[in-house]
Amino acid sequence: MNNILVAQSGGPTVAINSTLTGIIEAAQVSSKIDKIYGAVNGIQGIFEEKFIELEELVKNTDDTELLGYTPAAALGSCRFKLNDWRENDHQFKKITDVFRKYNITYFVLIGGNDSMDTVWKLSEYFAEKGIEDIKVIGAPKTIDNDLEETDHCPGFGSAAKYIATTFAELERDISVYDDPAVTIVEVMGRNAGWLTAASALSRLNGGTGPSLIYLCETAFDVEQFIEAVKEKLLVNNAILVAISEGIMDKKGVYISEMVQSDFQDNFGHKYIAGAGRVLENLVREKIGCKVRSIELNLMQRSAGHIASQVDLNEAKMTGRKAVQCLLEGVTGEFISIVRKCSEPYTIEYKSVPISKVANKEKKVPANFITASGMNITDEMLQYLKPLIQGEVNIKYENGIPKHLVLY
Amino acid sequence: MNNILVAQSGGPTVAINSTLTGIIEAAQVSSKIDKIYGAVNGIQGIFEEKFIELEELVKNTDDTELLGYTPAAALGSCRFKLNDWRENDHQFKKITDVFRKYNITYFVLIGGNDSMDTVWKLSEYFAEKGIEDIKVIGAPKTIDNDLEETDHCPGFGSAAKYIATTFAELERDISVYDDPAVTIVEVMGRNAGWLTAASALSRLNGGTGPSLIYLCETAFDVEQFIEAVKEKLLVNNAILVAISEGIMDKKGVYISEMVQSDFQDNFGHKYIAGAGRVLENLVREKIGCKVRSIELNLMQRSAGHIASQVDLNEAKMTGRKAVQCLLEGVTGEFISIVRKCSEPYTIEYKSVPISKVANKEKKVPANFITASGMNITDEMLQYLKPLIQGEVNIKYENGIPKHLVLY
Repeated sequence: MNNILVAQSGGPTVAINSTLTGIIEAAQVSSKIDKIYGAVNGIQGIFEEKFIELEELVKNTDDTELLGYTPAAALGSCRFKLNDWRENDHQFKKITDVFRKYNITYFVLIGGNDSMDTVWKLSEYFAEKGIEDIKVIGAPKTIDNDLEETDHCPGFGSAAKYIATTFAELERDISVYDDPAVTIVEVMGRNAGWLTAASALSRLNGGTGPSLIYLCETAFDVEQFIEAVKEKLLVNNAILVAISEGIMDKKGVYISEMVQSDFQDNFGHKYIAGAGRVLENLVREKIGCKVRSIELNLMQRSAGHIASQVDLNEAKMTGRKAVQCLLEGVTGEFISIVRKCSEPYTIEYKSVPISKVANKEKKVPANFITASGMNITDEMLQYLKPLIQGEVNIKYENGIPKHLVLY
Repeated sequence: MNNILVAQSGGPTVAINSTLTGIIEAAQVSSKIDKIYGAVNGIQGIFEEKFIELEELVKNTDDTELLGYTPAAALGSCRFKLNDWRENDHQFKKITDVFRKYNITYFVLIGGNDSMDTVWKLSEYFAEKGIEDIKVIGAPKTIDNDLEETDHCPGFGSAAKYIATTFAELERDISVYDDPAVTIVEVMGRNAGWLTAASALSRLNGGTGPSLIYLCETAFDVEQFIEAVKEKLLVNNAILVAISEGIMDKKGVYISEMVQSDFQDNFGHKYIAGAGRVLENLVREKIGCKVRSIELNLMQRSAGHIASQVDLNEAKMTGRKAVQCLLEGVTGEFISIVRKCSEPYTIEYKSVPISKVANKEKKVPANFITASGMNITDEMLQYLKPLIQGEVNIKYENGIPKHLVLY
């Protein structure tokens, strides 16, 4: 008996369950695979043997479709890092025991760069111990788009579409009044500015889009920011500013921390302010016009109703490819998306050694950011554009999206 | 020559341009109406004679459709209150002169309770001065749903659908981890909790929805809140809490002000914190679990891509009805939606004297809130449900919604 186990790990995205459906479908049609297990809450679920049999819960194509359109990890997630097996292999022995108990010979972990560390360590351990019949593979997932060795990551395109759409709609909203106003929108991304860059996609149908875009890859200068805002207010009455949550000054101090340190409420507790809120206060003080800051918060990673069809399709394909690779005997690798061309958009899927991906972070390259550091280049726009194409036809019931809940 | 003038006023909504299209379409088919003018930035546009000829910009049914799906006031808005004409009629004379100059005999103002004050004063002035050939009427618009004399307001249903969808998606997101977590979502509504109540619609497909719902109609007790959160955490690992931005304690002090007063950043400036942020800090201090606060901010009133079809249809119908009333000689009135039945949902449109609506605020009635003050009743759910039905088939281009920009 050869069973397959799937787990999801790291922060939720809108596409992670599409990858899961790709895995289920590919496993279902393979005569080499018997049961399809899902581990609840990632690696934690393996230790605790919290498994669900996916074919019992995802019974037909209706269920598969519903699952593919359900945001956030349907199997649950965790933020658990395996220790170094060379120092202590207790965790690894336990995992091997559980795999043996459930006849698991194929394991797919859908996750980001931290999760790929798990795939790496497991595959190394199995190789070292001569366990050749258990194959492990990683499937990419992250809204942050910060995985190395892949053109982009499933989950990113949908978040980018949400952000582009939201900026286009916010532009309509802030344009209705006749007085100067600054709206600062803080986008997720502590170390990489990919998502913040996606705000520029709101210009595609003729909109102004954000007048200023600050990615965390560029050192942020508070004085220059105020001057830039003043200048842009001369051109447009009401402006949008996009910033990464992780913007920092040239000394490497997070802008969000510029205030936090001295900042306490009247209970004597530290107040956690985002970078947007800090800059909002600064604009109020230095310019004095109407100002507001907005955090796109969890909505940017969970808004399944505005997912990108291209993203969901690709997410599913990476799942299928992962199973295909496992069946072909691949282990310790990672499914990567290779872009052949942006127009017409053409990609292919391949697997690459997991060591090239695990624990690494892909930042936005210099040629994607303008020299001023306040905008993105056309090259970046060409890169981003194909990823947000296509609208999903999700199922609504009672006026709200229908989701498939597995546990 | 008889021309019609339309203006939009107050805060933007997703449905206000649907009302505009209803007015344009009804005016186009009437032989009694020649030109269709739009005033840019509400009443301000009348004073400045900033008019656009709508038939030149909205040329065909494609344009009309696009305009109807474009969020926020396409004619711009303002927050301008006319003075009392009995004390000083300068403003009113000016408006009359402009109306005469442009042969405007029909005027529709789309807006909320403040805007209806304008319709009221103008109609009174015209009556007092014996100006019988200029008819003025108000069409309802507000996401707050706080207008008297109407079952509900165009714009509310779409915001409610956004909120219900977002809570359903957030529930998926917060459920992935295995540790206790509180997510507090602050919803618009300074004086009325209608929008916050809409969060309960996220339960319609079997979801838990918000474990606690606090409307601004109920006095908020900080101690009770902490106890209630602790209790709910015993039932669910991760919980959502919905609060109105305007919640206040029994003394009438806004929860958001509980901290603001003493709260300064290290530049010595007051920090403006929302009620959600204040409660987030409180949960961190008193309970110590993972906690996050989210503001739905401008997205809840501008997310045209997730508008309610029922809402947009009704918005358009109120526009048509407004023109119909004007043509029948009605003046100084307001278009109201009367609910005949919730299941099957049946409504009709009528006009009511504007004095009954202007400057008044409709709060959530007691029978819509549970005795505990921490949830809404089934009655409220039955009231809300029909308003979010139907999905809009908006036009996308380049992966983002296409909007019609008038000026």
